Amino acid sequence: MTADKNAPVGVFDSGLGGLTVVREIMRNLPDESLVYFGDTARVPYGNKSKDTIIRYSGQIIRFLQEQNVKAIVVACNTASALALDTVEKEIDLPILGVVRPGAGMAIRTTRNKRIGVIATEGTIRSGLYHELICAEDPEISVFEKACPLFVPLVEEGWNKDPVTEEVARRYLKELLENDIDTLIMGCTHYPLLRTLLKRVVGEKVTLVNPAYETAQALKQLLEKRNLFHEPVSVGEEAGRYRYFASDSIEHFKDFANRILPYDIVQAEQVAIEKY
Amino acid sequence: MTADKNAPVGVFDSGLGGLTVVREIMRNLPDESLVYFGDTARVPYGNKSKDTIIRYSGQIIRFLQEQNVKAIVVACNTASALALDTVEKEIDLPILGVVRPGAGMAIRTTRNKRIGVIATEGTIRSGLYHELICAEDPEISVFEKACPLFVPLVEEGWNKDPVTEEVARRYLKELLENDIDTLIMGCTHYPLLRTLLKRVVGEKVTLVNPAYETAQALKQLLEKRNLFHEPVSVGEEAGRYRYFASDSIEHFKDFANRILPYDIVQAEQVAIEKY
Repeated sequence: MTADKNAPVGVFDSGLGGLTVVREIMRNLPDESLVYFGDTARVPYGNKSKDTIIRYSGQIIRFLQEQNVKAIVVACNTASALALDTVEKEIDLPILGVVRPGAGMAIRTTRNKRIGVIATEGTIRSGLYHELICAEDPEISVFEKACPLFVPLVEEGWNKDPVTEEVARRYLKELLENDIDTLIMGCTHYPLLRTLLKRVVGEKVTLVNPAYETAQALKQLLEKRNLFHEPVSVGEEAGRYRYFASDSIEHFKDFANRILPYDIVQAEQVAIEKY
Repeated sequence: MTADKNAPVGVFDSGLGGLTVVREIMRNLPDESLVYFGDTARVPYGNKSKDTIIRYSGQIIRFLQEQNVKAIVVACNTASALALDTVEKEIDLPILGVVRPGAGMAIRTTRNKRIGVIATEGTIRSGLYHELICAEDPEISVFEKACPLFVPLVEEGWNKDPVTEEVARRYLKELLENDIDTLIMGCTHYPLLRTLLKRVVGEKVTLVNPAYETAQALKQLLEKRNLFHEPVSVGEEAGRYRYFASDSIEHFKDFANRILPYDIVQAEQVAIEKY
C-alpha cells in the first residue's frame, strides 16, 4: 500500500499540551495537514498506570487511522514513554514519539555529560529518557525529577508567577546541585514555562524542547518515505487543521487559540472509549 | 421490592478524595458494609464538562447496582453538583450527594449570613451550593472560588507546605475581604488541608466539611427507610469493605491506607467504560 502524500499527519496527546508540538509542526512543516486528538475527558495521563495509557493510546490510534492519516506523532511524553513500544507493533503506519527526539538533542547538547530530565511521574517511572540516553552514550549521567505541579500551574495560567518559580526552584534544586548543563523539558506543557525555567536554571544550563525536536524528526521521517505534502498556499489553513477531543470542545478552543498561530475553525467531540 | 438491610452502601468518587467521606461513614456508621469505587483512570472530574461527568457517573452507578448496594453516596462534589439531579431520575435506589448536606450545615452555621465556598471549577460553575443556600435563605450572600491547585498540592503531599499556604492565601483573599464567617470545603480533598486552611482563614471563620455532614445525612436516610445494617462485631472489618478503581490499584492502596482507619484488604480494578 502506498500512503497518500497529501493525507494528514495524526497528532495526539492526553489533552492540550500536545498543541505545543502542533505549533512546532506548523512552523517547520507548513504544508502538512494535521488531525489532532486531545483526550481531554481522561486527562492527565502523567499519574496513571502503564496498562491504562496503552489502552487509551490504542483507542486514539484506531480513531486516527479512521481519519486516514499517513503518520502518527505521539505528542505526549507519558504516552511516548509508556505505550509507544507496544502500540507501534500493532500498526503499519510510521509513528514517532517525543521522547527519542528529545533524548537525541540532549545528547548532542551536553558538554559535561550531565543531563537533567523533568517530566510527569509516569514518564520518570518509565526510565525511558535515562535508557535511551545511556544506550547512546553510557558516560552520560542522567538526573530525573517528576514535577506533577507544573501542569496544573500552567493550566491555572500562573506561568510567570512567583509561586510557580518557588515550586520550580524546589523541583530543580537537586538537578542543579548535580551540575547538569542540559535540561529536557519532558512534558509538553513545560515549554510554556520556558522563561521561568530559564531564570531558575541560569545561563549555564540549556533547555531542550522535545516538541521542536519532534517536528524535525517528523520532517526527516516524511522525507525518507517520500511523504511530504504538496506545497499549499498561505490562507488555506482552515480546512487543513482538524481538532478532536474526548471532552467538550469549548474549553479546548479557548486554550488552543492561546497557543496556536491559527484560530481553530473545526473542532469536534469524539466518544473515544468506543474505539 | 424490599431492600436488603445488610447490603452494602455504594460510595463513589472521581478518584481517592471520596475516601474522606468513607472515613466519616466508617466512624459514624460502624456497622455498615461499603463498596467504594474510585474512577482513578479518568480522574479528575473538576475541570471536565457536565455531559462527561453525567456519562461517567451513570457508568459507575450501573457498576454499583451490580454489587447490589442498598443506597449510593456520590462522594464527589463535582459529580454531586453536575450529575446527581440527572442520574437520580434513572435509578430506584436512594442516592445522596455531598453538596446538599454541606450547604445545609453552612446555613445552620453562619451568623452573619456570609458563606464562602471553595471547590473545583466544575462545582463552582454549576452554582449548586449558591442555589441551595439561597433557596433556603435568600438573605445569605454566597462567595465562591474555584481552587484547582489544591488537589494536585494534596496529591503531591504538600498539605502543610508554605507554597500551599501562599496559594491558599491568594485563593481565599477575596472571600475573606467579603467578611465570610463560614467556609464550605467543597471538594473531598480539601479536608486534608484543614489545618492549613484554618490558619489562613483565622478563628472567626468556621470550616464546614461536607464529608462529615454526608455521613450524618446517610444515617438519617438509612434510619428513615429502616435500612440500618445489623450490628457487627469489631474485627469483622476485612470482608465488609470492598474497593474498586478504574486504574491500577497499587497507587490506590498506598493513598487509601494513609487516609483510612483500616488497611485495605480487598481491592480490584474495573473496566468502567464497559458499563
